[in-house]
Amino acid sequence: MKDVQNERDSRNVAIDRVGVRNVRYPVVVLDRDNGTQSTVASVSMSVSLPHEYRGTHMSRFIEALEGCRDSRIGPAALEALTQCLCGKLDATEAEVVFRFPYFIVKRAPVSGIESRMGCDASLRGTCRAGEFDMVTGVEAGVQTLCPCSKEISSQGAHNQRAAVRLDVRMTELVWFEEMIQMVERSSSAPLFTLLKRADEKYVTEQAYANPRFVEDVVRDLAVELNQDGRITWYSISVTSAESIHNHDAFAELRRDKRGD
Amino acid sequence: MKDVQNERDSRNVAIDRVGVRNVRYPVVVLDRDNGTQSTVASVSMSVSLPHEYRGTHMSRFIEALEGCRDSRIGPAALEALTQCLCGKLDATEAEVVFRFPYFIVKRAPVSGIESRMGCDASLRGTCRAGEFDMVTGVEAGVQTLCPCSKEISSQGAHNQRAAVRLDVRMTELVWFEEMIQMVERSSSAPLFTLLKRADEKYVTEQAYANPRFVEDVVRDLAVELNQDGRITWYSISVTSAESIHNHDAFAELRRDKRGD
Amino acid sequence: MKDVQNERDSRNVAIDRVGVRNVRYPVVVLDRDNGTQSTVASVSMSVSLPHEYRGTHMSRFIEALEGCRDSRIGPAALEALTQCLCGKLDATEAEVVFRFPYFIVKRAPVSGIESRMGCDASLRGTCRAGEFDMVTGVEAGVQTLCPCSKEISSQGAHNQRAAVRLDVRMTELVWFEEMIQMVERSSSAPLFTLLKRADEKYVTEQAYANPRFVEDVVRDLAVELNQDGRITWYSISVTSAESIHNHDAFAELRRDKRGD
Amino acid sequence: MKDVQNERDSRNVAIDRVGVRNVRYPVVVLDRDNGTQSTVASVSMSVSLPHEYRGTHMSRFIEALEGCRDSRIGPAALEALTQCLCGKLDATEAEVVFRFPYFIVKRAPVSGIESRMGCDASLRGTCRAGEFDMVTGVEAGVQTLCPCSKEISSQGAHNQRAAVRLDVRMTELVWFEEMIQMVERSSSAPLFTLLKRADEKYVTEQAYANPRFVEDVVRDLAVELNQDGRITWYSISVTSAESIHNHDAFAELRRDKRGD
Repeated sequence: MKDVQNERDSRNVAIDRVGVRNVRYPVVVLDRDNGTQSTVASVSMSVSLPHEYRGTHMSRFIEALEGCRDSRIGPAALEALTQCLCGKLDATEAEVVFRFPYFIVKRAPVSGIESRMGCDASLRGTCRAGEFDMVTGVEAGVQTLCPCSKEISSQGAHNQRAAVRLDVRMTELVWFEEMIQMVERSSSAPLFTLLKRADEKYVTEQAYANPRFVEDVVRDLAVELNQDGRITWYSISVTSAESIHNHDAFAELRRDKRGD
Repeated sequence: MKDVQNERDSRNVAIDRVGVRNVRYPVVVLDRDNGTQSTVASVSMSVSLPHEYRGTHMSRFIEALEGCRDSRIGPAALEALTQCLCGKLDATEAEVVFRFPYFIVKRAPVSGIESRMGCDASLRGTCRAGEFDMVTGVEAGVQTLCPCSKEISSQGAHNQRAAVRLDVRMTELVWFEEMIQMVERSSSAPLFTLLKRADEKYVTEQAYANPRFVEDVVRDLAVELNQDGRITWYSISVTSAESIHNHDAFAELRRDKRGD
Repeated sequence: MKDVQNERDSRNVAIDRVGVRNVRYPVVVLDRDNGTQSTVASVSMSVSLPHEYRGTHMSRFIEALEGCRDSRIGPAALEALTQCLCGKLDATEAEVVFRFPYFIVKRAPVSGIESRMGCDASLRGTCRAGEFDMVTGVEAGVQTLCPCSKEISSQGAHNQRAAVRLDVRMTELVWFEEMIQMVERSSSAPLFTLLKRADEKYVTEQAYANPRFVEDVVRDLAVELNQDGRITWYSISVTSAESIHNHDAFAELRRDKRGD
Repeated sequence: MKDVQNERDSRNVAIDRVGVRNVRYPVVVLDRDNGTQSTVASVSMSVSLPHEYRGTHMSRFIEALEGCRDSRIGPAALEALTQCLCGKLDATEAEVVFRFPYFIVKRAPVSGIESRMGCDASLRGTCRAGEFDMVTGVEAGVQTLCPCSKEISSQGAHNQRAAVRLDVRMTELVWFEEMIQMVERSSSAPLFTLLKRADEKYVTEQAYANPRFVEDVVRDLAVELNQDGRITWYSISVTSAESIHNHDAFAELRRDKRGD
């Protein structure tokens, strides 16, 4: 059968990224406390395509993914997968992104009862001219309580759920669990799946005592990330579902510490 | 050209609904305060299909929709459209659903500054054996402040944005604006697009003074709907994005007053 | 601390359903070929609330869910969970819904290469006055190739991905795998995650030889479900992302075989 | 009342972007054929925040947006809005993004019947140190028919709906209509809302005669954009909902022609 993809292309246009997207796949990821964790990823895989090739071979991406069936998805597996794609597809660049729910066990602050809470985690690995680069991400929910509303109101203060997305490059392993704790420390209060009444009193008062604008969340997180020697680059995005508005407040900051 | 859809079908299976979905279309809808309002709808249109026909004629749905270009979308237009579909497609039942953002002008409670706020509105019209039936819906955002959190905490109370979906059947026109006001009255506080500091103080204190569980929102709304003689049937769904949890609380109630 | 939820309510409005929604949770589900499968569910849990109670106790839903940690999610676990909720929350009705990606191994038709493909599965269990009822659902992707386009065109035929949602009530176990096969048999061709060139030729020709309107998919599926003695009730919804239109075609059928 | 946002901040962290997001707002946009078009936008507005300010004033974004009520949203309005935000919020950078459905009238290729078809349009304006920059985007649906599937199969070829996102910077006005036509010319066939049977035959045969990989769509579009002197920068993203797979194929290319 003819290999149409292998035809020579005369349009003289190299393509940055060509591949597959929204591939759902069951994976096992590294977990600080339990060794591993089973979850379900949405996977994207692509390579650069030189101008002279008509097309890439899409089935080889899936073969490479199936080849990871028994791997624990983490830095080593992503490096191997991007190198495998460069080889199989004769490419100088390959990128793979895994996005998946990741669960941590949270202990309620007073009762101590444990429950599981999910966040959105991601790993993006890139191999360029043989060099591997990885960005690790989490998006976790927190509470933000408005400092202005607290200051000006005789009682109460509007508060709400906010989503904090944190992406980092690191020189030494920083666990998802640590990234989530950094995010939580920068907020008015963390979220929990299971709270008894004494716990609800605790987190309500904790949030009231720690008002935070979205600007404050970004800054407190930036201060901590600036001090953490393992982290060389970060990107923060905070989106707060304001409980007095029908729209969101947001703040974003990206910094490359190596460039300083 | 052969009309495949018109072939006789021998499988002996009548189909409840066949048609088109997710048709985006610019529409003009009735507006209490300004006469009309331009918006963009997602439209679904379907008919029942008797067992003996192989298929319906999908292009006729779009022709019928194009025929509404100059209509104001409301009860009369929906009745005409469903009847038109029954005729064009030789069907005993037709259903059309328009979902669209609808904007109301909100006046901030202290400063009086006006701004536009969007909600999700919908109109579902059905023609069955010549009889027309319509369900009118809104989904509006509100604030809920937790009565338990307020009661047990020394200061503050968790609160959050909640979405209230209200669908009604009516014997006499109830405007989207009225439905939104009913929803807002049943909540801890309404939302606004634009609030100055004096307004923010006002709504913060208003919410703190009016704590509401999702159960309370449903019940206060049900009491008002029960008393409104124009409304014969309703369905309420409240979903609150709890600011202490990473999941939502919800409550739902459906009631046919004619069946009492 | 005061139990606000336990206060007596005087509004005289019983609530159909009150509970939690969008709880993400790692689960293990039954798998025909491998015994079990790890996945991640979005869980909804609710109870009916008599008119005299101010509120339900939301934390007890999560406690009940945590109590299922070591259960395999299936009919027995759902029955136990709904009964547990009725007991813990003093309710006459409880409903739980688990939605989760479910993976099956597909073998390419010519090369025989295996790959994993995800579908959306769901289990909805209800306990009413002690009686348990369950609806099992899958939403699987298939290909539909238009019979009209094939008939009238000199070459080719438009085809596209369609989503088929099938919900059933059963008297005897029907596996997700069987439901997916029923869905695939009713379509122009099944989908695969991994196809080599000889496989692509096969499925292209298979689809061209088996044109199906959305109406045909519903009917072929209905004929098979009507003949299957294990199934007492079904609901089918087919949505086809037409490749010549920017909107979808759909067809739906619901039938209670017990009512005949 | 105290102005908490105006407090001095000592954390020494400047923030890239702080503002509001997901503000739904009715707008009027420029339309090549009809002068203007009413639609509904999702608006994002932000400014940079120097390290010494505690917070921005969120209500001023909405005031600025309300101030555009009577403007036609286009390059001039965006430039004015970003300058207004820099002034009102004492910022050196401001960014506003409007995303909205935009409708064009399509004429069926044989019957000539007209219908409206929606695409997703966007305008992103940035003011940095007084200099204005704008990116104009459309995301339009098209059909892609697989060259490999056509080549190797005895009959037929798999085809599907694909979404093509095109963002450009321009030195002279390029209408949304022109951008959509460029996208359509690079595909196997355009989409239509309304096609009669003779039209369906036409587009089926057109697509079969013009097979295109996602790589081909990117390249044909790039060739045309390279030749268009009005365009100085572009970004292309094609995502094809493969009808033989349950995942998507994609290709992406970004090029700054000024940098050559």
